[in-house]
Amino acid sequence: MLGDLLANVRKKKPLIHTITTYVTANDCANMVIACGAAPIMADDPAEAAQVTSICAGLDINLGTLTERKAQSMHLAGIRSNELQHPVILDPVGVGASSFRRETVARLLKDVRFTAIRGNISEVRTIADAVEEHPRGVDADRALAVTEETLDRAVEEIKGYALKLKTVVAVTGAIDIVTDGERAFVIRNGHPMLSDVTGTGCQLSALVAAFCAANPGSVLEATAEAVCAMGLAGQIAHTRMTEQDGNATYRNYVIDAIYNMTPEDLERGANYEVR
Amino acid sequence: MLGDLLANVRKKKPLIHTITTYVTANDCANMVIACGAAPIMADDPAEAAQVTSICAGLDINLGTLTERKAQSMHLAGIRSNELQHPVILDPVGVGASSFRRETVARLLKDVRFTAIRGNISEVRTIADAVEEHPRGVDADRALAVTEETLDRAVEEIKGYALKLKTVVAVTGAIDIVTDGERAFVIRNGHPMLSDVTGTGCQLSALVAAFCAANPGSVLEATAEAVCAMGLAGQIAHTRMTEQDGNATYRNYVIDAIYNMTPEDLERGANYEVR
Amino acid sequence: MLGDLLANVRKKKPLIHTITTYVTANDCANMVIACGAAPIMADDPAEAAQVTSICAGLDINLGTLTERKAQSMHLAGIRSNELQHPVILDPVGVGASSFRRETVARLLKDVRFTAIRGNISEVRTIADAVEEHPRGVDADRALAVTEETLDRAVEEIKGYALKLKTVVAVTGAIDIVTDGERAFVIRNGHPMLSDVTGTGCQLSALVAAFCAANPGSVLEATAEAVCAMGLAGQIAHTRMTEQDGNATYRNYVIDAIYNMTPEDLERGANYEVR
Repeated sequence: MLGDLLANVRKKKPLIHTITTYVTANDCANMVIACGAAPIMADDPAEAAQVTSICAGLDINLGTLTERKAQSMHLAGIRSNELQHPVILDPVGVGASSFRRETVARLLKDVRFTAIRGNISEVRTIADAVEEHPRGVDADRALAVTEETLDRAVEEIKGYALKLKTVVAVTGAIDIVTDGERAFVIRNGHPMLSDVTGTGCQLSALVAAFCAANPGSVLEATAEAVCAMGLAGQIAHTRMTEQDGNATYRNYVIDAIYNMTPEDLERGANYEVR
Repeated sequence: MLGDLLANVRKKKPLIHTITTYVTANDCANMVIACGAAPIMADDPAEAAQVTSICAGLDINLGTLTERKAQSMHLAGIRSNELQHPVILDPVGVGASSFRRETVARLLKDVRFTAIRGNISEVRTIADAVEEHPRGVDADRALAVTEETLDRAVEEIKGYALKLKTVVAVTGAIDIVTDGERAFVIRNGHPMLSDVTGTGCQLSALVAAFCAANPGSVLEATAEAVCAMGLAGQIAHTRMTEQDGNATYRNYVIDAIYNMTPEDLERGANYEVR
Repeated sequence: MLGDLLANVRKKKPLIHTITTYVTANDCANMVIACGAAPIMADDPAEAAQVTSICAGLDINLGTLTERKAQSMHLAGIRSNELQHPVILDPVGVGASSFRRETVARLLKDVRFTAIRGNISEVRTIADAVEEHPRGVDADRALAVTEETLDRAVEEIKGYALKLKTVVAVTGAIDIVTDGERAFVIRNGHPMLSDVTGTGCQLSALVAAFCAANPGSVLEATAEAVCAMGLAGQIAHTRMTEQDGNATYRNYVIDAIYNMTPEDLERGANYEVR
């Protein structure tokens, strides 16, 4: 039962080291608490690896990247691998600069990631970064994940998971989570989630918490975290009044994770496995 | 019709590069989304100019300044000028340190600003920073913008706009937005806006979004953003219950921008042109 | 009357320089405003001491520490001492890395602290850092502050206050605030406060505001700030509906400080002096 994965987070309360952008750090910390885990944030090379050592999982997020933070990600990632803790990568805006692309390429070279979570365009940029030959044409790929492009998208993203040797979670109108063999196609979520900054960052932190509490089932744990975030978006939307906007919605999404029981998640998760 | 300026933001959804303080970055990002634009934040010299290149506008905010961020502002500002994108300056606390004053002086030397938004004291500090001879006495200036000092304040701020060759928006009990020729005198707003950290930062991000979507009308766009923020403060206050305080108010202000229609803004904007 | 200490914050509106982590900076700033003081944040060595000079109090917080911020803390702390302004230390996660421990040791060597606020484990780590000989065994200490261990804990924490020559505030299920002579044992608070990231950081900022407005009564001011935060946690909890979670609670806590009168605090403070 997938709800058990959330129950494990609540029971084990894993400490999650998050190296993320200051834009969404507060929300990520409160989201980690909401799901039952505990957050710690440290992004300086002077302590990043040591802080990781006392944690059960690591979440790396490229937002407002600096050279100093890139070094910390590298050191913490390697240390986390040594400890066999899950390491999650959120390649925020990786297509926006060569600095982010080069940082990801260096990370992928030296750190084994348990899961990579991003939108389709971020995941493609990463997959291209490790490709020996540039891909041919975009016509081979689904432009966005919709019901019409779903079959093609599942195959494409399975290919990325195999190439990157990690679970890949592509979130959008429909979410796809795959290890290259099996793919969870998830239809939870609400369009308003994209009207709040950092819901993707929060989800990546959730994935880290779920994987840390369920190290033997990282595909299912990642999929369940994606379902939980989407379901929270749906629940939060039912609370909205006419005058509420994206700031109130932001609070309600975190609130919904805080109050979500394993049974709620089991009932509300809307997915199929392909 | 001024409401069209907001409609243009919603239609064009400009991507806004904000280099701002971590204290208010999350609120700025959610405010940019609330008005219909999209935020991206990058403050490292390794990527600042490149990120600006994919945006339609740039917002520079001096809060929690570092040398690294100052370099990023410089590089992004110059690049934005090359692309003829609007560049907004928010000189937060510029009077608090020589580091901030010198940074502003360097920026003003090399970057053309579309608009500068601050309180009267910040704007005076900037105007003084570029003056060849120190101003005579403060008696020549309005100490604060009130109904009593309004005529004098309008003339004073028009003078700054001419000297700085930019739109100047001075916000306070009464707001004045001018390009040196025409001045919008704006009586929207609510005193409680000053009980939330970063409402000024949020407004500057709004100004960037409005100018990016209305590049041919930057005076009107800046004035309209100021009206929108003030009106949001008024609407938010009508929702407050007895136990609500500045944290709930902070959410309601962003919510109000999220739900504001061009017609609401047209009806609620309270200004005269001098 | 202890409520007067809050009244003094509202009357004097002290400007508080907070050097803190980006994770909780926004909440700290809004909390400082909520109690009636004003926040300013500057964490670069190029301006830290100068910004402190225009303030009435300084709050130093070790979260997401960097070498650059550590230097700023050092410079601002020394300057604040010269000006005889209160300086508060929040040793967040000091046990998590040698970098944080060494930074604290350097700070304790050169800066006189007015108050140190942390959980029992953080305060112990600090006390050990300045001890010539390592302490014997943990059996000598209360493992956590509960009704059962209270007597022992009060003695232990009084010892730390004497050794560190500062007011020490240890917060937990029961809070203890002492200058080594007298101890306030405080039973305000709500367990849900620990479900919001940074409520400790917010409290330390409150302590700075209360001490800055009441420089002659720093023990009482610290104790009163601790009562106020705990009482806010209780009030906030009475507002919670079934669907509210830690994000909404976070807002309600700040709201409660915003609306708290000196009379409310006088009535609601639950403490004894030992």
